[in-house]
Amino acid sequence: MVLYTLPSLYDVEQAARLIADKVVETPVLTSQRLNGIATANLRGGGGGGGEGGEVKVELFFKCENVQKTGSFKFRGATHFLARLRDEELERGVVAFSTGNYAQAVAHAAQVAAFERGIRIPTSVVVPSNCGRRKVEAAESYGATVFRSGTKPLDRVDMAIRIVEETGAILVPPADDSDIVVGQATAVRELLLQVAGHRLDAVVVPSGGGGLLVGAIAVCKPLGVTVFAAEPELGGPGLAAAMQTGHLALRSLCLDGGSTPTIADGLQCLTGEANWEHIRGAGNVAQVFSVSEKQIKGTLRLVNSDEFVGAVEPSAAVGVAVVLFSSAFARWVVAQSKGVVRIGVVVTGGDFGVEELLILL
Amino acid sequence: MVLYTLPSLYDVEQAARLIADKVVETPVLTSQRLNGIATANLRGGGGGGGEGGEVKVELFFKCENVQKTGSFKFRGATHFLARLRDEELERGVVAFSTGNYAQAVAHAAQVAAFERGIRIPTSVVVPSNCGRRKVEAAESYGATVFRSGTKPLDRVDMAIRIVEETGAILVPPADDSDIVVGQATAVRELLLQVAGHRLDAVVVPSGGGGLLVGAIAVCKPLGVTVFAAEPELGGPGLAAAMQTGHLALRSLCLDGGSTPTIADGLQCLTGEANWEHIRGAGNVAQVFSVSEKQIKGTLRLVNSDEFVGAVEPSAAVGVAVVLFSSAFARWVVAQSKGVVRIGVVVTGGDFGVEELLILL
Repeated sequence: MVLYTLPSLYDVEQAARLIADKVVETPVLTSQRLNGIATANLRGGGGGGGEGGEVKVELFFKCENVQKTGSFKFRGATHFLARLRDEELERGVVAFSTGNYAQAVAHAAQVAAFERGIRIPTSVVVPSNCGRRKVEAAESYGATVFRSGTKPLDRVDMAIRIVEETGAILVPPADDSDIVVGQATAVRELLLQVAGHRLDAVVVPSGGGGLLVGAIAVCKPLGVTVFAAEPELGGPGLAAAMQTGHLALRSLCLDGGSTPTIADGLQCLTGEANWEHIRGAGNVAQVFSVSEKQIKGTLRLVNSDEFVGAVEPSAAVGVAVVLFSSAFARWVVAQSKGVVRIGVVVTGGDFGVEELLILL
Repeated sequence: MVLYTLPSLYDVEQAARLIADKVVETPVLTSQRLNGIATANLRGGGGGGGEGGEVKVELFFKCENVQKTGSFKFRGATHFLARLRDEELERGVVAFSTGNYAQAVAHAAQVAAFERGIRIPTSVVVPSNCGRRKVEAAESYGATVFRSGTKPLDRVDMAIRIVEETGAILVPPADDSDIVVGQATAVRELLLQVAGHRLDAVVVPSGGGGLLVGAIAVCKPLGVTVFAAEPELGGPGLAAAMQTGHLALRSLCLDGGSTPTIADGLQCLTGEANWEHIRGAGNVAQVFSVSEKQIKGTLRLVNSDEFVGAVEPSAAVGVAVVLFSSAFARWVVAQSKGVVRIGVVVTGGDFGVEELLILL
């Protein structure tokens, strides 16, 4: 069941123009150190690297961790709101989130209200165990924060109740074409910024699937391969779903009590419409899974002065793929090229002092 | 005594090309919230703002705080090294610094060594009271860290001794045309990135003066006004020097024991050659000084999720000018324009957990 057709590159261009003066053109980082680690990883992945083959990996990190409110989600929320009329926005907006998206929607609404000179009552629903820092950030942007139970469906229920009671508009997390093309502007921008170095593939972590579908919309017409990254446990389960052709409603996503992955931003279900695009032939070349150990190792590597801003665990999942995944290494070696150029979207930077403890 | 002529915009273009694949094209941030604060400040500065005049300030922050190693200084160091031959670099390089520049030179040398396939012995001299985090960062880039006394001249002495004993090359902090044009690439990049919005002026904080002279080189041919920012106490004393025409060798700069400003990165002497350019007619329109209270207030405002990465006290000095300086407000109002557009270079992001305490 396809709820909407795959957005076109032109749709993404239009979105980019619409939000150009509201989002940050985030930097693209290169690092010889990380190129070296990714290239060394090829030796474990099918004979590349040092062994005569001389394959090299060149990485281009799109640093959405320094986007406003600290994640690419600000792009989608900003675009969604930009497409609404004043009268619609004045009814208010609602979002549900474990934290990042609450901040993105709250600030996007604040900016839209300021720009249009209207009032936009903004409600965000977060789990009752949401960290104080995230709640305070959403409040600082003028949103009213509601606390639901800790299960994902608790948040959805409460958000829908607010919509029904107040007539406010729900800002969907991922499964919406306006959100998708807004998020896709990050991938478009990356390709423009590295125009001198044609990318062979782009790797994006996937939770709800909005950025992944956005990456397809941008990359497919240009012949750039799209890869998804997810945690082995606790993510949306895309790798298994691509095998079976069936997206399981896994209990660990609906449960919320247990947290098998530190990449909690990816601990959600892929949207139905997004899934139809993700499974579509020739859209996502492969889904790579990384272990908790690989994610933590990556977090230690990238949260350094050389890197740009902090990198959160969910964002480290995509980076972990290119540094440590043997399945990815096999793909690189199979390209039979001297240099394989990979873009990686570093999706978010919500990684504070308290979270550093998980690395100990 | 002019030790070198003012670099041309063409020199800066050449430098930008030389370091393009080694530095981050850092983002330009806009913020309606900060525009609002700067515009509100006009009311205290000569009758602008709300009072009929309807002058508005639009700010464009060039976020060098997310440059590699956390500051614009990486640009200058990278460019300086790029202009040396392999044989020169193999003799080794030396820098002295309170911290930021040590990291910049250490990483720039690491990158140059990797790229050229040579060894570059790198020594950095820091004060004995330099924080562990800064020392470890420099060491992580492969530099040998030497600790001098706490006075600025102690560092210089030790660095010169290393040069004399080992034949290594000193990477100057600011007073060198290769450093200046390297640092100037940040200002050039800013003007290109905001090309759609012609800037009326650029504000840069000044310590050694390299970035300020670089800003002159870029802005003067284009007719963009250049302003310097410094802390009222403990900075290079440019405001006073512009009045008297004479740069005093102030004891507080040479002493180092007392720390009258939290913007410690600006607590240094302006280079002699740089000073000749800074005082030159039509080069720097004005030097604005800000109080410690204004710097701290700015740090609280900009170290938020909306902003890109952390902002260090020295970088907050330039931002404080556009938000709070009444002298700056008077200049804006005197422009008699509807919208006055200002670029501000946010020079560095070395602001860790321990430093947050100074805001309490």
